[in-house]
Amino acid sequence: MLYLTRRETFNAGHRLFKQEWTDEKNLQVYGKCSNPHGHGHNYILTVTVKGKINPETGFVVNLKTLSNIIKEYIIEKIDHMNMNTQVDFMKGKIASTENLAIAAWEVLDPHIRLLGIELHCVKIVETENNYVEYYGN
Amino acid sequence: MLYLTRRETFNAGHRLFKQEWTDEKNLQVYGKCSNPHGHGHNYILTVTVKGKINPETGFVVNLKTLSNIIKEYIIEKIDHMNMNTQVDFMKGKIASTENLAIAAWEVLDPHIRLLGIELHCVKIVETENNYVEYYGN
Amino acid sequence: MLYLTRRETFNAGHRLFKQEWTDEKNLQVYGKCSNPHGHGHNYILTVTVKGKINPETGFVVNLKTLSNIIKEYIIEKIDHMNMNTQVDFMKGKIASTENLAIAAWEVLDPHIRLLGIELHCVKIVETENNYVEYYGN
Amino acid sequence: MLYLTRRETFNAGHRLFKQEWTDEKNLQVYGKCSNPHGHGHNYILTVTVKGKINPETGFVVNLKTLSNIIKEYIIEKIDHMNMNTQVDFMKGKIASTENLAIAAWEVLDPHIRLLGIELHCVKIVETENNYVEYYGN
Amino acid sequence: MLYLTRRETFNAGHRLFKQEWTDEKNLQVYGKCSNPHGHGHNYILTVTVKGKINPETGFVVNLKTLSNIIKEYIIEKIDHMNMNTQVDFMKGKIASTENLAIAAWEVLDPHIRLLGIELHCVKIVETENNYVEYYGN
Amino acid sequence: MLYLTRRETFNAGHRLFKQEWTDEKNLQVYGKCSNPHGHGHNYILTVTVKGKINPETGFVVNLKTLSNIIKEYIIEKIDHMNMNTQVDFMKGKIASTENLAIAAWEVLDPHIRLLGIELHCVKIVETENNYVEYYGN
Repeated sequence: MLYLTRRETFNAGHRLFKQEWTDEKNLQVYGKCSNPHGHGHNYILTVTVKGKINPETGFVVNLKTLSNIIKEYIIEKIDHMNMNTQVDFMKGKIASTENLAIAAWEVLDPHIRLLGIELHCVKIVETENNYVEYYGN
Repeated sequence: MLYLTRRETFNAGHRLFKQEWTDEKNLQVYGKCSNPHGHGHNYILTVTVKGKINPETGFVVNLKTLSNIIKEYIIEKIDHMNMNTQVDFMKGKIASTENLAIAAWEVLDPHIRLLGIELHCVKIVETENNYVEYYGN
Repeated sequence: MLYLTRRETFNAGHRLFKQEWTDEKNLQVYGKCSNPHGHGHNYILTVTVKGKINPETGFVVNLKTLSNIIKEYIIEKIDHMNMNTQVDFMKGKIASTENLAIAAWEVLDPHIRLLGIELHCVKIVETENNYVEYYGN
Repeated sequence: MLYLTRRETFNAGHRLFKQEWTDEKNLQVYGKCSNPHGHGHNYILTVTVKGKINPETGFVVNLKTLSNIIKEYIIEKIDHMNMNTQVDFMKGKIASTENLAIAAWEVLDPHIRLLGIELHCVKIVETENNYVEYYGN
Repeated sequence: MLYLTRRETFNAGHRLFKQEWTDEKNLQVYGKCSNPHGHGHNYILTVTVKGKINPETGFVVNLKTLSNIIKEYIIEKIDHMNMNTQVDFMKGKIASTENLAIAAWEVLDPHIRLLGIELHCVKIVETENNYVEYYGN
Repeated sequence: MLYLTRRETFNAGHRLFKQEWTDEKNLQVYGKCSNPHGHGHNYILTVTVKGKINPETGFVVNLKTLSNIIKEYIIEKIDHMNMNTQVDFMKGKIASTENLAIAAWEVLDPHIRLLGIELHCVKIVETENNYVEYYGN
């Protein structure tokens, strides 16, 4: 078993808040992240897949293929977008890094299975000081 | 003469657009950055000052003092804010990295002069692939 | 299960040596790190916690809370300190990165349990070329 | 159990191709990496070992010893070399990051066992956007 | 005047040698870099341009335009290529970082002038430990 | 003219204080950095030299030669040492980054002149958030 990781980057806007809460409650829970005018981040998404080496190619999977899947299903939908209002896989969810990691897993998993390999980890780096990892359950 | 540099970070939301232009024109000039829903970045601000060593302290300036000035006049006003609507020193300006660098210079310069040293360079890193430097004229 | 990681940094002084050994023996085992005058590092501490998403907040835990715990119990006690003589949780221990990782785990673990989540990994990066990870047993 | 990681770097040349394939087939599978004139990378190799703390020294293993093993058996044989033609442990293998990670594991494992510790992970970073990890099976 | 910098990356193969020298002489002058089988690097190219802000756009120049020029005239010609034999702007030159920086300047300068701005600096990072900067004379 | 930069790293211990001041005065001026027990940093030293390309070699200067000078005259004297008491070129000086940059310049300058090139800049990075540059006057 080998673990292969691909890094992609995107920028997005978001606001952390719950619609059913008052602004005061949102501020108390989410701090500056609840700013109603929105802010954003340079996110780093790393996707780790796991599989056997294909002895024909020496690859677990062609990196180009993996990169294209990440770009088509995640990056193109979220890059320079507002996570709260414009990204289908974040609809109705609090725009936290945790929810984003799970959503990215759910989007990517079926496409990666089709390659005959397994999705192992989705990691979202929000700032140089924090990140979330999700292993699928 | 010595050059001393301090790095601070902040996150902010922005949208690149001109109000007098149509959405089409904005899209054509600013691409995805003109998205009306806004997006954002993890910005890095580095401030370089220039001065002689104070032989009493071995410092050009106390880094704590320099950091406090940057935090009080820039970071606290822009961190987790929307540059287009909430940041006084960006009011009425296109929220480009270029305009941000000049604005930060203008905000910081008088405070740094009071320390008996000179502001040398303001650098704004918007993504790992691009940054702007301004030397005051 | 999600894994959330927070990075904090500190500087500290240390010397690797055993009091019961001669300087020659210490030099032989610890090399330059046994220098009796002390040296130090810019350490990076990353703390990974593990838990379920709180559906109320979209968070595993509030990052601010986690950061405050790390700062109060580790960073404020070790930052700009000498690990051999001034840091209570390193008292009587060889000031190795290994011992520091275990000590940080033991300090943090009870506070993190109180949050209803689990401590998963403590990582100490000593230089760009080496680091230690501890998973609690 | 503690996990200790050492980072080493090297540069090498390689070409991805299978001798029994035509240039067209190689281009189709390996893209630009199949360029017959060769290209190369700044590789980062990180080696993670796992063991108990030696209470005598406070170390899992002396980092100098670990670094010397990596340098003697891997770095000196591959640094500034062409992986396809000059590196004994890559002979007859497709010069993929996957194969390199496995080969490095096989070279290092017996030497690390002799230290009374276990090899846990070999990681090869090929570019800032991709890396492979191997855990030995 | 503002300075805007764009970072692009590429991988390439090279060998440092002079055809008129013996292998021994080449080895003496260029060390391991003279290996006849070739090796390579992950290069980072940063291009800094200098100009006034266009008050219409808030830009010195559109980053997309700048990036496209760098990609079309440099990256596409050198990425995954062998600098000694396949890159027209390195033909007949020793494949040193110095010569590469000058060559990249000469290729880029006329295209950047056409944008109404000036090329200020071309920087080539060969490894994490060394880089070359060229300012045009 | 080309500018060639070499990066080297070292760890060192230091304490910021003036012997003629009380501990209170030192604490007031230098904060935690005046801790009498000492602390330390992972310093990065980058040395930039300036010169013409030697048409014989394609080099401004052989990087190995430059690296050896930095190692022999700076790194070996300061790595894992206490700057206040063990480093001859810091003797009698406040152990600030500013003084270290000037001292490193003075040590390196005569050796670099002998190579027929000029020292352009000495940069000392003390933490990820601050550094000092010295250009020789």
